[in-house]
Amino acid sequence: MPEHAPDPAAAPGDVFAWIDDAERARERAGLVRTLRPRPASSPLLDLASNDYLGLSRHPGTVRGAREAVERWGAGATGSRLVTGTTELHAELERELADFCGFEAALVLSSGYAANLAAVTALSDRGTLVVSDAGNHASIVDGCRLSRADTAVIPHSDPDAARKTLAAHAGRALLVSDSVFSVDGDAAPLAGYAAACRAEGAALVVDDAHGLGVLGEGGRGALYAEGLAGAPGVVATMTLSKSLGSQGGAVLGPARVIRHLVNTARTFIFDTGLAPAATGAALASLRLLRREPERAGRAREVARLLHERLTASGLTAARPDAAVVSVRAPSAAAALRWAADCRGAGLFVGCFRPPSVPDGISRLRLTARADLTGEEITRAVETILSTAPPGAADR
Amino acid sequence: MPEHAPDPAAAPGDVFAWIDDAERARERAGLVRTLRPRPASSPLLDLASNDYLGLSRHPGTVRGAREAVERWGAGATGSRLVTGTTELHAELERELADFCGFEAALVLSSGYAANLAAVTALSDRGTLVVSDAGNHASIVDGCRLSRADTAVIPHSDPDAARKTLAAHAGRALLVSDSVFSVDGDAAPLAGYAAACRAEGAALVVDDAHGLGVLGEGGRGALYAEGLAGAPGVVATMTLSKSLGSQGGAVLGPARVIRHLVNTARTFIFDTGLAPAATGAALASLRLLRREPERAGRAREVARLLHERLTASGLTAARPDAAVVSVRAPSAAAALRWAADCRGAGLFVGCFRPPSVPDGISRLRLTARADLTGEEITRAVETILSTAPPGAADR
Ligand SMILES: Cc1ncc(COP(=O)(O)O)c(C=O)c1O
Ligand SMILES: Cc1ncc(COP(=O)(O)O)c(C=O)c1O
Repeated sequence: MPEHAPDPAAAPGDVFAWIDDAERARERAGLVRTLRPRPASSPLLDLASNDYLGLSRHPGTVRGAREAVERWGAGATGSRLVTGTTELHAELERELADFCGFEAALVLSSGYAANLAAVTALSDRGTLVVSDAGNHASIVDGCRLSRADTAVIPHSDPDAARKTLAAHAGRALLVSDSVFSVDGDAAPLAGYAAACRAEGAALVVDDAHGLGVLGEGGRGALYAEGLAGAPGVVATMTLSKSLGSQGGAVLGPARVIRHLVNTARTFIFDTGLAPAATGAALASLRLLRREPERAGRAREVARLLHERLTASGLTAARPDAAVVSVRAPSAAAALRWAADCRGAGLFVGCFRPPSVPDGISRLRLTARADLTGEEITRAVETILSTAPPGAADR
Repeated sequence: MPEHAPDPAAAPGDVFAWIDDAERARERAGLVRTLRPRPASSPLLDLASNDYLGLSRHPGTVRGAREAVERWGAGATGSRLVTGTTELHAELERELADFCGFEAALVLSSGYAANLAAVTALSDRGTLVVSDAGNHASIVDGCRLSRADTAVIPHSDPDAARKTLAAHAGRALLVSDSVFSVDGDAAPLAGYAAACRAEGAALVVDDAHGLGVLGEGGRGALYAEGLAGAPGVVATMTLSKSLGSQGGAVLGPARVIRHLVNTARTFIFDTGLAPAATGAALASLRLLRREPERAGRAREVARLLHERLTASGLTAARPDAAVVSVRAPSAAAALRWAADCRGAGLFVGCFRPPSVPDGISRLRLTARADLTGEEITRAVETILSTAPPGAADR
């Protein structure tokens, strides 16, 4: 049957027959994704989540959520511009900005919404948005939603950024992840910032995977590079990874934040973040202040995982933060490898096309700060003992 | 000074100088929006939130959130495709689909994300998306993000929908709010559905303001019209209004939901909804089943508000759901009116350009099911006694 042959059994007037065709195509390609609900206490060792500091179930974070829902209710009840801003939101915004070294912050309902807000509100028809080829889907969607022209530059290439910016006369914006989610590599932020300064462009950095892991006490990648609070720099973040909650934020000069309040559609036309998520993120942030060693421990666990896996012949990029990405010989091999790990009690991520920008499939490991030495050993042994042929000899 | 004159005091190389210009233009136009954090116990009578059934602070809903965070943690910890699907998410999806009369449901982190997911995943290059002119910003953004052609038709015009669909040969989708958020009027769903059936198009309806208010026991606008579960019909919803929580959902045939799991970017590349929000929405849903009279009461409160305000000469559209929209003579008058209400202890919404599709400013009142007779009287009296000249004599 040809690739997209219509199903002869489809009902006449079946408006979704094309979905069955697409589903069969995914099945043939071995690319079907299904949801696997997990129980509350999983027997699996988790190296798949983005709960980098292990705070999602920390008693302090859980208490923050619980107290918030009891005091403020289960929902924000409206847009942040109407009834959806509580004093708790304002508190989180103040403390997050202060912690990360920015003048002001704005909390949104997700990191995805934060990226859509920042990219669209800071660009307009005539603006050039220069975007790193490895950027997260939410940045790519922000570029698509904006009325700006987008120029995608090669991954982690400050020279290309500078040349592209130099060729444009009007307003410009360079946007990049700080740590790329698939391979865990850090962006050349200093080079990107220099290109922006030289060419008069703004810099927007998504620090989703840097907050809580990079910089002194987990203050993030921009703080680490001395870029936090710089006049032309804006950060986006998520509250759903290191802070173990949900939600997103944009950090920057107060005038940029005021501009977002007035113009960002995913802020204005969206219900405010639920009090429980707001309270949990605030509690995690305070925990991070009291226990600044958590950030370094996540990086140390990543270093250990990388060292021991590559010493045994696996191919993995040196981790710049808390993501360790191990190459698999093929998409099918990656899938089987992850399934075999799971069968042996280890939950790892598996990234395959189309979720990977370069077509290379990999296991994705999260170096949680709260993994014990014994757990790290168990994880390494499981990954090695289940490695497919071809994974360990390049 | 001309409209957008650059600030002579701006630092050289100040990449955000244009933001100051935009801010000054907003100030001149009287359109500056600022955030006003509210305390946990506000002395104001709330007719501004979207907490239609008053469930956000209901003990059952709050308990649902609290138990969920204690059992599952503060965050979902990852994408729904990796670690972010708990058994709680699956439970909510089953019960929501069952309640509203659909085969399957998918929960996302917001109603905004749900609309982006539904519109983008169900359209492609070559698809025609026909969109009602009154649609919510998240639908408009979904159209912009999709690679489809979008045709905006006049507000609530099934004939225009049919003609526009008839003129297109390939795949097509008609998308509409069920209840329009600004004026509270219901879409002509039966007419839209007939146009779709006649022209072989799919119908996507955003039931954000219908769930919990319309249909038997609050099963929503599609259920009310006998369209729930129809083969070519997809609903999007939010968990942040009648259910008093946060999050969104897409409901439809199981194959549509599977397609979203595999292709919708705001589902795949977003952290799963926090357990607290999931648990709160599930608790509210169960409450709604046990107390089906809540939906009718919200509609009755809306009818009372409308009747008493228009009897006194104010102009307000007859409410089809739980939103009562009162016309103001101008944007400035609307703003002052809302402020005067607030001064007198009543919190009402105020919609002005650019948040209104037709340029008409209004007070927006939410007819909460849990308002008492005394509160309704107080609200009406406050609105009347603060009405600006010109509001009550058309
Ligand atoms: C780099 C990056 N940015 C943004 C996001 C979106 O954040 P959220 O899940 O809070 O919407 C993610 C992951 O989900 C991410 O990896
Ligand atoms: C019609 C409509 N659709 C979608 C949304 C977005 O839902 P959420 O706030 O849950 O993102 C809203 C309001 O916020 C709305 O009014």
